[in-house]
Amino acid sequence: MTTVIEMLERYPRSLGIDTQLLAKTLDALSDCASTCVLCADACLAEDDLAGLVKCVNLNLDCADVCSATSRVLSRRTEHDPNVARPVLTACIAVCKSCADECGRHAPHMPHCATCAESCRACEQACRELLDATS
Amino acid sequence: MTTVIEMLERYPRSLGIDTQLLAKTLDALSDCASTCVLCADACLAEDDLAGLVKCVNLNLDCADVCSATSRVLSRRTEHDPNVARPVLTACIAVCKSCADECGRHAPHMPHCATCAESCRACEQACRELLDATS
Amino acid sequence: MTTVIEMLERYPRSLGIDTQLLAKTLDALSDCASTCVLCADACLAEDDLAGLVKCVNLNLDCADVCSATSRVLSRRTEHDPNVARPVLTACIAVCKSCADECGRHAPHMPHCATCAESCRACEQACRELLDATS
Amino acid sequence: MTTVIEMLERYPRSLGIDTQLLAKTLDALSDCASTCVLCADACLAEDDLAGLVKCVNLNLDCADVCSATSRVLSRRTEHDPNVARPVLTACIAVCKSCADECGRHAPHMPHCATCAESCRACEQACRELLDATS
Repeated sequence: MTTVIEMLERYPRSLGIDTQLLAKTLDALSDCASTCVLCADACLAEDDLAGLVKCVNLNLDCADVCSATSRVLSRRTEHDPNVARPVLTACIAVCKSCADECGRHAPHMPHCATCAESCRACEQACRELLDATS
Repeated sequence: MTTVIEMLERYPRSLGIDTQLLAKTLDALSDCASTCVLCADACLAEDDLAGLVKCVNLNLDCADVCSATSRVLSRRTEHDPNVARPVLTACIAVCKSCADECGRHAPHMPHCATCAESCRACEQACRELLDATS
Repeated sequence: MTTVIEMLERYPRSLGIDTQLLAKTLDALSDCASTCVLCADACLAEDDLAGLVKCVNLNLDCADVCSATSRVLSRRTEHDPNVARPVLTACIAVCKSCADECGRHAPHMPHCATCAESCRACEQACRELLDATS
Repeated sequence: MTTVIEMLERYPRSLGIDTQLLAKTLDALSDCASTCVLCADACLAEDDLAGLVKCVNLNLDCADVCSATSRVLSRRTEHDPNVARPVLTACIAVCKSCADECGRHAPHMPHCATCAESCRACEQACRELLDATS
């Protein structure tokens, strides 16, 4: 359990969004970003590295986009939905692509199975938040 | 002049995109990210800080999204246009919002004038690259 | 509870470090980075913003350094302790400075109180990991 | 030529450091971060990928640490040298390790040769700035 929910509850103004939903999304983004960095590294430690290059690069893309998305969504003061919405849309796309690729390796690579689940959870959380802000 | 163009020319495979256009976009993204971090800090040093909070947060959003976009576009090996396109679309949106906000302060804040120009140049470069990949 | 521990347990080689200690540190770094981004934004929403500029900038520094440290520590394949140790040392310094500054505002700003605790926990976790790798 | 120097000249207070030296360091950090992301990707495109895993991970470490260092050094308002110095020290260490590793591959990998030069230039710029702030 992270301190994100406590921080959101202590924000001095109205958040302009459901607090639980935002906290859940921020936690999913952090988890996905961390997991993707670890999955890229685990792939680099595999014997069959040549077949995992696409997975490494999608993991790195997903980590970078989730980190940026988390920061944009965290900034509530003068929050601009015209920025947040396309950023969420991009994040959903990269989480989906990364989950698909990790999913292909999941049957024989346990780290890809865990990472695929984390990417799917993040994709789903971002979709719910996007629906709530449209 | 950065070493980006030299790195792209030394990539061992085909880049799958016009080298000059990609180099121009990566340089614009780096420049915009650096400029936005500096503009947020310069706003924090102004006496009229209360009127610049939106500018600070858009600067920070723009820096984060430009950095992530630069990294996604830099990864050419097994490059996934289904990821790159929505990321470019998000980057165009945040550069536009940040340029608009900095533009409002430009007449009396020279750092916002410089930053608005850098955001516009980055928005334009990203649009050209998006057109070239669609 | 994040998926970090599961990812570490599924790493295909030896991690070269105590798994629980590394997982605890990575979670502390993620939590601190998220908390600091939220604290900077909460400060920007306060009426007494002028007195919080140092806090905003230290929060942003701390978020950036914790994120980079988390990534360096996550990369175990061909892990270079000559890189990890000075990065941990820098992270300890910025967590301490940010905790001190947030601690000054904690009595009247609940978000700074939460953030100070998160920074202290991260500083402590990084110290333990640094001790274990020296 | 980036807009960094123009931004620094338009900062509304005293920078507390030589403007040209800071601009040179920020440009070197941006260039090194961009180059390292491109070098990691170029390594992933090489046939002899197994021998380049250490290079990939050091490139990624160097990109992350240079990006964080650039942001910390860019924040001049209430700038804390107790944060900046250990961050610079860490950046020097990672630039040196990455330059050494890329240097080993430079004779037969042109992208590693370019990247080694960029890392050396960044290491040197950070050393000069550290000397100037001690």
